[in-house]
Amino acid sequence: MAQTKNYDLIIIGGGPAGVTAGIYAARERLDTLLITKDFGGQINRKAVEIRNYPGFISISGPDLINKFENHLKKFKVTVVKDKAIKIKKQGDIFSVITDNKGEFKSLSVIIASGADPRPLEVPGEKELIGKGVSYCSICDAPLYKNKTIAVIGGGNVGFEIALLMTKFAKKIYILEAGSILRANQSIQKQAQKSSKIEVINSASLKEIKGKNFVELIVYKHNNKLKELAVNGIFIAVGNVPATRFVKGLVNFNKKDEIKIDRITRQTNITGLFAAGDITDTRFKQLVIAAGDGAKAALAVSKYIRERKTL
Amino acid sequence: MAQTKNYDLIIIGGGPAGVTAGIYAARERLDTLLITKDFGGQINRKAVEIRNYPGFISISGPDLINKFENHLKKFKVTVVKDKAIKIKKQGDIFSVITDNKGEFKSLSVIIASGADPRPLEVPGEKELIGKGVSYCSICDAPLYKNKTIAVIGGGNVGFEIALLMTKFAKKIYILEAGSILRANQSIQKQAQKSSKIEVINSASLKEIKGKNFVELIVYKHNNKLKELAVNGIFIAVGNVPATRFVKGLVNFNKKDEIKIDRITRQTNITGLFAAGDITDTRFKQLVIAAGDGAKAALAVSKYIRERKTL
Repeated sequence: MAQTKNYDLIIIGGGPAGVTAGIYAARERLDTLLITKDFGGQINRKAVEIRNYPGFISISGPDLINKFENHLKKFKVTVVKDKAIKIKKQGDIFSVITDNKGEFKSLSVIIASGADPRPLEVPGEKELIGKGVSYCSICDAPLYKNKTIAVIGGGNVGFEIALLMTKFAKKIYILEAGSILRANQSIQKQAQKSSKIEVINSASLKEIKGKNFVELIVYKHNNKLKELAVNGIFIAVGNVPATRFVKGLVNFNKKDEIKIDRITRQTNITGLFAAGDITDTRFKQLVIAAGDGAKAALAVSKYIRERKTL
Repeated sequence: MAQTKNYDLIIIGGGPAGVTAGIYAARERLDTLLITKDFGGQINRKAVEIRNYPGFISISGPDLINKFENHLKKFKVTVVKDKAIKIKKQGDIFSVITDNKGEFKSLSVIIASGADPRPLEVPGEKELIGKGVSYCSICDAPLYKNKTIAVIGGGNVGFEIALLMTKFAKKIYILEAGSILRANQSIQKQAQKSSKIEVINSASLKEIKGKNFVELIVYKHNNKLKELAVNGIFIAVGNVPATRFVKGLVNFNKKDEIKIDRITRQTNITGLFAAGDITDTRFKQLVIAAGDGAKAALAVSKYIRERKTL
């Protein structure tokens, strides 16, 4: 169904960047639509309490998401719960097409759709998603009570997942492809205290097997293939920017992140802005995404005001 | 008293940028010293509830400052309550000299000392500071119960002060030098509802008079000098970056803001970083300062790690 209305701004994404952009856009009296499948972005996958968003000494992901969503709802921003799948520009007008066949038009767009978990791309992974293969420990942890699980990735996130899972699983393997763990010392020490956690270095995952549900994983270790019987696996090997829907439209860097002008916050397309982990900003953090969301909304406000006074 | 210890990082300033930099620096295990006279920065002068820091729908300045300060105290950051008055660099080592004759040394510095209220620079202003001349309504509002006051500046901040003062003063004049008010429509409408507030456009303040305390102000209106009997005046004509102590050391833009590299977050001096309203960032907002404080601390962490592995 095509909408005839022209918004000043469409924000794509409901994470910290998108929500903050929404708050600021509304305060700037921009007629704003925010399109997102759900609120919170990567906070949804956070396995531990958040301790680095200034003002909250320690807060769970779901609690912080609620606070962000409730804050946004205090302002006049229209929210459509859907997934943006394409952006087009005709003349000066943007069209954002969504999964449920919505089409929404606007004078400007802020892309703030963040990043998705990076898949391993091994046989069995895709087939067993939701059947023992998970990218979100906080979503699926309770399914593995007294079970054996593997966490793929020896960075901070992998260790955070393993520590969370000690409350549920009976045995947790952390498999790290490299010879050295990337996680910081303090979280490694915490993990060493748990008899449930076992770390296997130089272990590169090759296949995930199982009929209806994950049964075992195959990994390469010292040039030999080894098997490990597990009931589930959590994949924590980083993120990829959620940029598929703007391929061919905007310029990316080598990491597939959207390039933005640091002053105007604009992409290479006039009127098309971006903020948060989807951009080529150097550090990916909640408070950084929020701050850059505010910058993008204020830049859009300037852009729209100048455009309307032409 | 000279300190012999070398910190990894000295942060100057206790506002949103400085506190967030402190939290992030401690998480990066940098040995960090934070020098500030008080916490909160410009939040201390905020006359209305803060409604644009994501996660808090509405929070008073003092409450948010407490939350920031308490958050920082959860981390291992040394705090010295003093004012930095000079930074020197000798070889690779920075020295920060403070008002109370302290001297502290470090491998890197983040300047996050924010901005101070801009003075009007009219006769009587300096002489009567604290005697009826104020730059901070939230500090001094209760002094003016049933009194007559003038607010200088017809921007959002001027109107916020006037609205706050309706709870105390019997009469409030807003004097705006320009012919048009810069405040947004909604706050102007709020002010129109109060019979206590009277706005005078095209009124340029020329002098503040009073023996022991402010007694009257002189302003120019339609080329005539006029007088107004007031008990106090609040000055709200913008901010100036608090950069005096680094004059001659770092590069500034035309607005006296510290120029930083958008990628490295560094000033023109290697190892000397800056964040928040003191920098040439385009928009000055609490959440933006916090995000940029995090960026600066993470950039310093990278700088220190690279330096130590040389």
